[in-house]
Amino acid sequence: MSSKYKALKEECFEANIELNNLGLVIYTFGNVSAVDRKNGVFAIKPSGVPYEKLTPDAIVIVDYDNTIIEGSMRPSSDTKTHAFLYKNWNHIGGIAHTHAMYSVAWAQAQKDIPVFGTTHADHLTADIPCAEPMKDNLIQGNYEHNTGIQILDCFKERNLSSEEVEMVLIGNHGPFAWGKTAAKAVYNSKVLETVAQMAYLTLQINPNAVRLKDALIKKHYERKHGKNAYYGQ
Amino acid sequence: MSSKYKALKEECFEANIELNNLGLVIYTFGNVSAVDRKNGVFAIKPSGVPYEKLTPDAIVIVDYDNTIIEGSMRPSSDTKTHAFLYKNWNHIGGIAHTHAMYSVAWAQAQKDIPVFGTTHADHLTADIPCAEPMKDNLIQGNYEHNTGIQILDCFKERNLSSEEVEMVLIGNHGPFAWGKTAAKAVYNSKVLETVAQMAYLTLQINPNAVRLKDALIKKHYERKHGKNAYYGQ
Amino acid sequence: MSSKYKALKEECFEANIELNNLGLVIYTFGNVSAVDRKNGVFAIKPSGVPYEKLTPDAIVIVDYDNTIIEGSMRPSSDTKTHAFLYKNWNHIGGIAHTHAMYSVAWAQAQKDIPVFGTTHADHLTADIPCAEPMKDNLIQGNYEHNTGIQILDCFKERNLSSEEVEMVLIGNHGPFAWGKTAAKAVYNSKVLETVAQMAYLTLQINPNAVRLKDALIKKHYERKHGKNAYYGQ
Amino acid sequence: MSSKYKALKEECFEANIELNNLGLVIYTFGNVSAVDRKNGVFAIKPSGVPYEKLTPDAIVIVDYDNTIIEGSMRPSSDTKTHAFLYKNWNHIGGIAHTHAMYSVAWAQAQKDIPVFGTTHADHLTADIPCAEPMKDNLIQGNYEHNTGIQILDCFKERNLSSEEVEMVLIGNHGPFAWGKTAAKAVYNSKVLETVAQMAYLTLQINPNAVRLKDALIKKHYERKHGKNAYYGQ
Repeated sequence: MSSKYKALKEECFEANIELNNLGLVIYTFGNVSAVDRKNGVFAIKPSGVPYEKLTPDAIVIVDYDNTIIEGSMRPSSDTKTHAFLYKNWNHIGGIAHTHAMYSVAWAQAQKDIPVFGTTHADHLTADIPCAEPMKDNLIQGNYEHNTGIQILDCFKERNLSSEEVEMVLIGNHGPFAWGKTAAKAVYNSKVLETVAQMAYLTLQINPNAVRLKDALIKKHYERKHGKNAYYGQ
Repeated sequence: MSSKYKALKEECFEANIELNNLGLVIYTFGNVSAVDRKNGVFAIKPSGVPYEKLTPDAIVIVDYDNTIIEGSMRPSSDTKTHAFLYKNWNHIGGIAHTHAMYSVAWAQAQKDIPVFGTTHADHLTADIPCAEPMKDNLIQGNYEHNTGIQILDCFKERNLSSEEVEMVLIGNHGPFAWGKTAAKAVYNSKVLETVAQMAYLTLQINPNAVRLKDALIKKHYERKHGKNAYYGQ
Repeated sequence: MSSKYKALKEECFEANIELNNLGLVIYTFGNVSAVDRKNGVFAIKPSGVPYEKLTPDAIVIVDYDNTIIEGSMRPSSDTKTHAFLYKNWNHIGGIAHTHAMYSVAWAQAQKDIPVFGTTHADHLTADIPCAEPMKDNLIQGNYEHNTGIQILDCFKERNLSSEEVEMVLIGNHGPFAWGKTAAKAVYNSKVLETVAQMAYLTLQINPNAVRLKDALIKKHYERKHGKNAYYGQ
Repeated sequence: MSSKYKALKEECFEANIELNNLGLVIYTFGNVSAVDRKNGVFAIKPSGVPYEKLTPDAIVIVDYDNTIIEGSMRPSSDTKTHAFLYKNWNHIGGIAHTHAMYSVAWAQAQKDIPVFGTTHADHLTADIPCAEPMKDNLIQGNYEHNTGIQILDCFKERNLSSEEVEMVLIGNHGPFAWGKTAAKAVYNSKVLETVAQMAYLTLQINPNAVRLKDALIKKHYERKHGKNAYYGQ
């Protein structure tokens, strides 16, 4: 069963398996996609298939208008959200969605996650935004497509860059994360979950905990991401 | 040792083992049963046997009046609760009972679990009910039988459907969950435990967290369970 | 290296390993002993030996007056507490001491663990007692011996039976548990840790949570331990 | 590829792997170093290398002035902090830095960890200090070097001995721990994380929990570390 999308499917498959290995999903509560910019398609997990039974062949290929290009199964029910983000954000290569415990808790609490420390600032300088729950008229419409709109609107209103802030919480729902590759989107999902738990515990110990001071936010972010970055090889 | 209930015992055995694998029980703190509607009997875990030592042959076959039909061991001490539910709810195929951590915590707190997000709404539209602790005169009577009555009374008082709401907390005790099969009852036990932990964390982060809006509750539930459901294969 | 205490050492060794497997200890933060009533000696973990390096031969045999009867290593630093309890409570066959997370948290909070539900009542009808921290003059004396006195005094003051209540918290320190065998002492340590976590979460969800009603406490305890017990085989 | 630092690199490698095995790090969020006092150099993890891909050969050898002596990779971005501590504290043989969950939560809350019990007192008699976040002018300067200054200043201001208190929290950042060897530094990191979680839970159960009384602090510490210590072999 040869396919021109074999490598793309395998990248997508590996990223989905990693999501499960990292403890970010149970059952079918999550999905990862990987994009092929040259061909204008992306690979995504089929809907409702347990991770234990997932194979690279089961991965579905879809274009940015949600047409199935290859694959015998129905793609993730969140496919339209992925398609919308790929269409609007040319720089991203992969997207992950989970119902991970602490990320969901902040989303259900409808609170942004404040930047309380360097673990957070190593990855982004802003608070992690929690988008408002969707308006009723949008829910009745094209729901998953509109989730994508909801994310873009949130970034516009707050003047956030999706290149720097690679994660968001959807109020009363859960997290989406993205990155240059599907693997990076999964990495960002794990970072978000970790930072979400740290921030939760911080507020339990000190309800008046203060945000990291600006000089430290800048220092840590630029150590890893600035033009004079000296972290890593 | 051939038995006409061999397949039923194996279904019951597998579901009990899965309960343990999912981290929902320690020692002997739980049990699962599976029903055979045609023969009017159900298979249930023997009482006090550790999961590590459980075999399909040890599973006990009981009828709806609690008469042992097959098996050399004493059935679970909660057998009468299972029997009562099977007798009254024709649509269910399996029942699971655990003392899982977060489910028990809500039961001991005597609080319903509010529907705070889509993880919950993907499975049921109502708050997960916590039945009031049993009245003293019922405790002194046929206790496990009366636990079944307690569950049915709770559903009647609140006008809940046991086809839509497949789980309940017994005040000061713990959760029961059910479903079309024993495997689904175990699945529902895991969903309940997950949702219970999410709701607990949500209230820790925001004591004034609000329930999911009705339009979203309906949308998520119908995405998976409505007549135009498009989740899964 | 044959020894008349070979079986006793092995019982003690297995119970110590199980303590570690159950996640109740890290490093050397715990110890289990097993008694031989006929010979008036008990077997106990050597002090400061990591569980990964423990062997049955390393187990030390000690009498009730803390004299080493067999073994080339120094016994646990808590040996005198074990000896004192064996000397005073003829009915017990094993003792376990840990620094397990939730048990220690209640001990450090200096609070008894209220009987909030049936998981607790299945094992004991009383709140789990937290003994007051030791008086200064006793600390300067024979500390570990006096820890034994502290436990007995606590049970006397509260009129508790060490046959029914097989566990205690030492204020600002941690838990001791016992039972008919070393394995039962380890079991009780795990039950204590589980009930401690459940009670902690219950109070987080509902700070006004109430104790289980007396009729239910009695019912659940007698289901398992009364003269008409019908739990188990 | 023979090297006069082969044994040192292996010690450092093993300690880094243990940090990961103990669940104290995810991805590249941590590092351990081991010093060779005779040659005035230390071995440290390369920057940004995942633990799964780490080999003894990849370990970098650096002197106290941060000059790379051996190794083809860039050393940890925290190298200057390690160098500063080795230069100023002659008695230490290893240093570990993590972003472990509960340690970070206390650091982000900017709170010292009070000595609430004997688990803490078995290791140190003081509260675990949380150094104030760095002043802005120091952040803009030689950041990682200044983190070392920040630690020393904290110990001077509070009159703490780095031989007795082998751990510190950096406000809004995370923990550093040290010891006679790299393995001991890792051990202290695990003890710190455990004590941090215990103290967090203690305050959740009893916001008015009191510090361990002085006589008990002294007793437990001297049991293990005093001149008449009787813990261990």
